[in-house]
Amino acid sequence: MAKRPLILVTNDDGITAPGIRALIEVMNKIGDVVVVAPDSPQSGMGHAITINSTLNCTEIKVDNGPQKEYQSSGTPADCVKLAINELMARKPDLCVSGINHGSNASINVIYSGTMSAAIEAGIEGVPAIGFSLLDYQWTANFNPLKPFIETIVRNALKEKISSDVVLNVNFPLLGENEIKGIKICRQAKARWVEKFDKRQSPMGKDYYWLTGEFINEDRGEDTDEAALAQGYISIVPTQFDLTAHHAIQKLNSWNFEE
Amino acid sequence: MAKRPLILVTNDDGITAPGIRALIEVMNKIGDVVVVAPDSPQSGMGHAITINSTLNCTEIKVDNGPQKEYQSSGTPADCVKLAINELMARKPDLCVSGINHGSNASINVIYSGTMSAAIEAGIEGVPAIGFSLLDYQWTANFNPLKPFIETIVRNALKEKISSDVVLNVNFPLLGENEIKGIKICRQAKARWVEKFDKRQSPMGKDYYWLTGEFINEDRGEDTDEAALAQGYISIVPTQFDLTAHHAIQKLNSWNFEE
Repeated sequence: MAKRPLILVTNDDGITAPGIRALIEVMNKIGDVVVVAPDSPQSGMGHAITINSTLNCTEIKVDNGPQKEYQSSGTPADCVKLAINELMARKPDLCVSGINHGSNASINVIYSGTMSAAIEAGIEGVPAIGFSLLDYQWTANFNPLKPFIETIVRNALKEKISSDVVLNVNFPLLGENEIKGIKICRQAKARWVEKFDKRQSPMGKDYYWLTGEFINEDRGEDTDEAALAQGYISIVPTQFDLTAHHAIQKLNSWNFEE
Repeated sequence: MAKRPLILVTNDDGITAPGIRALIEVMNKIGDVVVVAPDSPQSGMGHAITINSTLNCTEIKVDNGPQKEYQSSGTPADCVKLAINELMARKPDLCVSGINHGSNASINVIYSGTMSAAIEAGIEGVPAIGFSLLDYQWTANFNPLKPFIETIVRNALKEKISSDVVLNVNFPLLGENEIKGIKICRQAKARWVEKFDKRQSPMGKDYYWLTGEFINEDRGEDTDEAALAQGYISIVPTQFDLTAHHAIQKLNSWNFEE
């Protein structure tokens, strides 16, 4: 590519999270980088957007890199909308989101602020990739991921992925030499079984903490969960047309005239 | 059905919104009703969940109906998790969400708290339907919808819809006799083009209001937007396996060894 690509970087853990700093470092090798990310952690925000209150957005300098950076009070999806429609001089060639501190494999994609940011870019016509590491620690080591991220991003730019298909990339918690490779996968059919920890406030009012256990009932070998368990990086192509086309025929047999 | 079905009702506009009150009224004719809904409006919350703070939940009485009701400080998805895992004596036979004040057709499904509640029920193995009316007014007239909602819900209970396929039902803003019927549709490929209204606070700090224009570039006759424009109720079967299966083959041709 003769001209350096313009790359938007965002996340949901906040602009100072080690995961996004690692991602910015890799992207600076590949293109011109603009960062628009939340000013505080937004995990579990799903595809929330801010419609009944205002958004703050300020240019800031976090490190000595060449990238331009903005922090916003908005959700990850807000950050992408702001970046593409207000802050960036032209539409970016690619949006990368992450690196998330924690898994966004299988059903986690639905609750993920990281992936909602990437999906928002896709909706706006910008090819996008979300990156996540299976380590929830703030001090997670992102170094082993860097060469793989560079390879995936260079492929995405070269192959010109469609903005209709957003890549959900998850990394196993392994060293660079332990990672077995990359597998293209489908989303495993898994879910969280919630347990609510019920407590009472000093004023006698009930309240709950949400906790849960992750249950993967999908034995398929072609799933992201299977790839990760075997030591592979998983890439799931993800779409935002949610239509269950296979169900249309059956629904057409319903009797609405009774 | 010999035994009355157990029906969970929720929404994203808050437990006192006229839309959910109309939905509760119809559901009381069909089954035993438990309401678990946010204590304040949660529009645009997408599939957000509460993981870093606590949830309040209190039993309340809003009207003289036979239903049991709880209001919660959580998001719509939180309400469904609380209902199924903590508050209800057994797994409900159906979850209905809405009636939303405003459209959840086409890409709006991604941002919708109403649909995220229904999808959360689906993930938890409970068949679910989201209902929305193309009228954003708090004083919208939900009466013309009631016989159609009753028909759709009775069909869903009789046909035992799979929890993997959540129905996204949208109503045109028409009188009962003007509605032409029901169409099974696919999600239109549409998007919001954002405009950020940039302002300055009295303290001289920039802030933004998010506004936007809805753009439907999808000319297909089989879409929800087309059905609604023609005066039909649209039903889109919606799934939460986001895998873009058609893209897997192409991704497998990428070269990750360079």
